[in-house]
Amino acid sequence: MAQGEREAARVLAANERFYAAFRAGDAAAIEALTATTALVACIHPGGPALVGRAAALESWRAILGGSGRPAIHCEGAVAHLLGDAAFVTCYERIGDDWLVATNVFALEAGEWRLAHHHAGPTAIVPRRAPGPATIH
Amino acid sequence: MAQGEREAARVLAANERFYAAFRAGDAAAIEALTATTALVACIHPGGPALVGRAAALESWRAILGGSGRPAIHCEGAVAHLLGDAAFVTCYERIGDDWLVATNVFALEAGEWRLAHHHAGPTAIVPRRAPGPATIH
Repeated sequence: MAQGEREAARVLAANERFYAAFRAGDAAAIEALTATTALVACIHPGGPALVGRAAALESWRAILGGSGRPAIHCEGAVAHLLGDAAFVTCYERIGDDWLVATNVFALEAGEWRLAHHHAGPTAIVPRRAPGPATIH
Repeated sequence: MAQGEREAARVLAANERFYAAFRAGDAAAIEALTATTALVACIHPGGPALVGRAAALESWRAILGGSGRPAIHCEGAVAHLLGDAAFVTCYERIGDDWLVATNVFALEAGEWRLAHHHAGPTAIVPRRAPGPATIH
């Protein structure tokens, strides 16, 4: 496997860990996955652009506090490498509802950390099982 | 001005050129601003995750073909540097309508090029003029 493919697979694994932490309602795990050197931002569906790590973490804690452990599943993830940064486009399935998302990652001390999460509504529901995450 | 601030200012300038090209209805300018080495993606409001430069450019041409020269203005832009990549969070004002957006840029041959655009609805309307673009 070429280095690019290996790194893309690691990005997708970090992306999946983010959603797994949400499903587990694990705010500490989400915090550990969030970038510390890179500057962090977050945009929730219908919400504003939250700028800064503290604001992003607070918003995630509020979601977990409100809905407990959301049954959120990531599907159709595609990793796009940009050197020491990367972004993932993916769909989020929560019950019968679908969102579309962009997650930006930064390579910090050899680990891919989430620098930005942007999720919003989509009228598109993937009709076929998107299958395993893919590397673009 | 520190190098980081200078690069962030260049990212914000590239972001502004993207919106200026839209206002001018200039599909060729949009194409010139779009990354060629980095892999490109695009998510329009309510739309799917379009993957690939050709799909993104086609979607932008379709918007220009449908609405001509959209009176789109970017406000409250914040640049986040990630080495040779960067992302911008901002609001898009189109008449009385507001969207919130993420734009990811890649440094290609010394120029910041758009690698990903994700715009979606927001219930938040900045109440005060956000002022000039800021560097986070």
